[in-house]
Amino acid sequence: MKKYLTEFIGTFFLVLTVGMTVINPDPGVIAPLAIGSALMIMVYAGGHVSGGHYNPAVTLAVWLRGRCPSSEVGPYMGSQIAGAFVAAILTLALKGDPTVTPMEMKVFPALIAELVGTFALAYVVLNTATAKATAGNSYYGLAIGFTVTVMAFAFGGISGGAFNPAVATGLTILHLAKAADLWVYLVANLAGGALAAAVFRFVNPEDK
Amino acid sequence: MKKYLTEFIGTFFLVLTVGMTVINPDPGVIAPLAIGSALMIMVYAGGHVSGGHYNPAVTLAVWLRGRCPSSEVGPYMGSQIAGAFVAAILTLALKGDPTVTPMEMKVFPALIAELVGTFALAYVVLNTATAKATAGNSYYGLAIGFTVTVMAFAFGGISGGAFNPAVATGLTILHLAKAADLWVYLVANLAGGALAAAVFRFVNPEDK
Amino acid sequence: MKKYLTEFIGTFFLVLTVGMTVINPDPGVIAPLAIGSALMIMVYAGGHVSGGHYNPAVTLAVWLRGRCPSSEVGPYMGSQIAGAFVAAILTLALKGDPTVTPMEMKVFPALIAELVGTFALAYVVLNTATAKATAGNSYYGLAIGFTVTVMAFAFGGISGGAFNPAVATGLTILHLAKAADLWVYLVANLAGGALAAAVFRFVNPEDK
Amino acid sequence: MKKYLTEFIGTFFLVLTVGMTVINPDPGVIAPLAIGSALMIMVYAGGHVSGGHYNPAVTLAVWLRGRCPSSEVGPYMGSQIAGAFVAAILTLALKGDPTVTPMEMKVFPALIAELVGTFALAYVVLNTATAKATAGNSYYGLAIGFTVTVMAFAFGGISGGAFNPAVATGLTILHLAKAADLWVYLVANLAGGALAAAVFRFVNPEDK
Repeated sequence: MKKYLTEFIGTFFLVLTVGMTVINPDPGVIAPLAIGSALMIMVYAGGHVSGGHYNPAVTLAVWLRGRCPSSEVGPYMGSQIAGAFVAAILTLALKGDPTVTPMEMKVFPALIAELVGTFALAYVVLNTATAKATAGNSYYGLAIGFTVTVMAFAFGGISGGAFNPAVATGLTILHLAKAADLWVYLVANLAGGALAAAVFRFVNPEDK
Repeated sequence: MKKYLTEFIGTFFLVLTVGMTVINPDPGVIAPLAIGSALMIMVYAGGHVSGGHYNPAVTLAVWLRGRCPSSEVGPYMGSQIAGAFVAAILTLALKGDPTVTPMEMKVFPALIAELVGTFALAYVVLNTATAKATAGNSYYGLAIGFTVTVMAFAFGGISGGAFNPAVATGLTILHLAKAADLWVYLVANLAGGALAAAVFRFVNPEDK
Repeated sequence: MKKYLTEFIGTFFLVLTVGMTVINPDPGVIAPLAIGSALMIMVYAGGHVSGGHYNPAVTLAVWLRGRCPSSEVGPYMGSQIAGAFVAAILTLALKGDPTVTPMEMKVFPALIAELVGTFALAYVVLNTATAKATAGNSYYGLAIGFTVTVMAFAFGGISGGAFNPAVATGLTILHLAKAADLWVYLVANLAGGALAAAVFRFVNPEDK
Repeated sequence: MKKYLTEFIGTFFLVLTVGMTVINPDPGVIAPLAIGSALMIMVYAGGHVSGGHYNPAVTLAVWLRGRCPSSEVGPYMGSQIAGAFVAAILTLALKGDPTVTPMEMKVFPALIAELVGTFALAYVVLNTATAKATAGNSYYGLAIGFTVTVMAFAFGGISGGAFNPAVATGLTILHLAKAADLWVYLVANLAGGALAAAVFRFVNPEDK
């Protein structure tokens, strides 16, 4: 229960920051910096309780890598989606039902962007927050958060830069993404997470 | 006495940075980055002496969590307010009595924004700077400072983004906030700090 | 093999971030921040496997300093160039064959800028990631990544700011640099790396 | 000799970054971020050799605090000034003898700004890089570098934001500051460093 509350709180603040900074006349450099930093602070705050996933694709990757019990996978993902949902509703209320134009995306480039970006995120999570060789470090939150910042700077214009099915759910509720495009995120993000787990296991075979 | 001087110095530099960067033709991305970084550097510099609160809402949360003696709560808050006061006066002098238009806020959204933002700040402080499970880390200042940066990017347009009664006092002296709105900050910030302490105690029951 | 895959992945993401953020109507402050952060996250993710060079000039410096077996130098550099190549091709595909105007550089200032910038980068790598006196620290990725950010802010207008023959290869494929100028990067970057190794050995004679 | 070379290199890159980013059509947010980051990377790279002062006011503060032998104070300061001098000359050459308008400063506000900013810098250095209670941390370079970023955001418009007699020397050679104003920096910076040492000794009496 404590883990699930922690996942709820972290994802809530991540998606709240997405909504409050992207629905803005000129998000510019602010949104990617703020969103990556929101992930960073919540990873540092909640990592010792739940691991600080805040992202179903990360939970999938950590489960495939063998560091998340199967029985927790569902509740983790449910808590993350719930946090995203509440954050999106609060954002709409605070912004006074804003007029938002959903992103027009091209499916194939968006699939690649979300796959590559989520691979980077899960690859960094597995290596900095679950590898034996880096245990006890103080940089994992910085590395994880800024992966989202970097990938959002790189791919924001192509896919919106979710790299996270919970964030994609939030973007959909906020009308920043079309409901018809939600599958793009789900497929690409989960595939990116799974690919990162496969690469991690290949590169670190002795690290069970 | 050493603790109180440290709290005075840290809050002084926090509020000085608020005043010098917000009273500006185009604060844009600069103010939230500078203000969060000011908190970060002062937390790292003074944490080993006073814990580096620089915020009555954080002192309240740390006291409720059981890591601040009751006898120190008053002097801590007094030192913080004094630091904010001196910083605001110095800012006005250095800026040559600037013309400042106080923020127009809507009370209910501002209450929510300040409550949620201060909850995030106190939640990050308690987890990164007072939890047994994260003792000895090097990231607490980065996490704490950038919580203010993130929340200021998210909520600056709604409440001004104080998340701190001492900063709110400074904003009032600087005419960036109306004296009639000071209660909004006091109520919401202290409530946010108290809520974070309750959540921390629920999630970490064994960590006394 | 695991080391080479790690070098491939890290350089891929570094050059992908270069291409996606520099080929932009207004890269401004974003490109140097994103590129340095991309290096930072990949150094943190792959450092425990390959050392996280992602740069033939760094591999040269680490080899001269005595921390990279001679037999690995070629495969490291090959993996880095391969990662840069794939990233550049993917960037062109995602951007839909963009119109790019290659940089006009003056050879002599560009040689100095690339030499000085690569010296800084290799100097920071050797001191923060290979010196005995700093072993076990958590800041090496931050220091290494932000060296590229700083040097790109300083020298971007003069040489494009590669400081890395693999990145220079990527810039050439992306038409951001002229093929006729590629030698400038190769010569200056390798010279900068070698100079940093010489300085490191002079300053730390007891650290073999 | 190794310490002096390290101080020369670090101050060289600090002042080079100042010159290359401030002499720019629109330094905006870039200069303070780049300059603070330049200090950060050089503190992390050279701290284990020389302590990473790169600033005569910091050397004064560390000496007063009892962590710099008297015989090294002169050579440290000389190396720092030499690094600043070479960096300024190189900047002028790379920029092609640029037209620079020196800052118009009001003496009294500039004295206050430089005194307060240098106090903050030396206070952070003493507490994060020389205090027994914070020994072994990984955040000292981040805290020290970003103190310059914060203070430059706060005071750049009032004094130019040197907080360092070596940087002030560089600003003068670069014609960014008037030679007639150099004394303002020297007096205020050394006074700020001395004041920080006094406060540190008062707050940490048992830390010799």
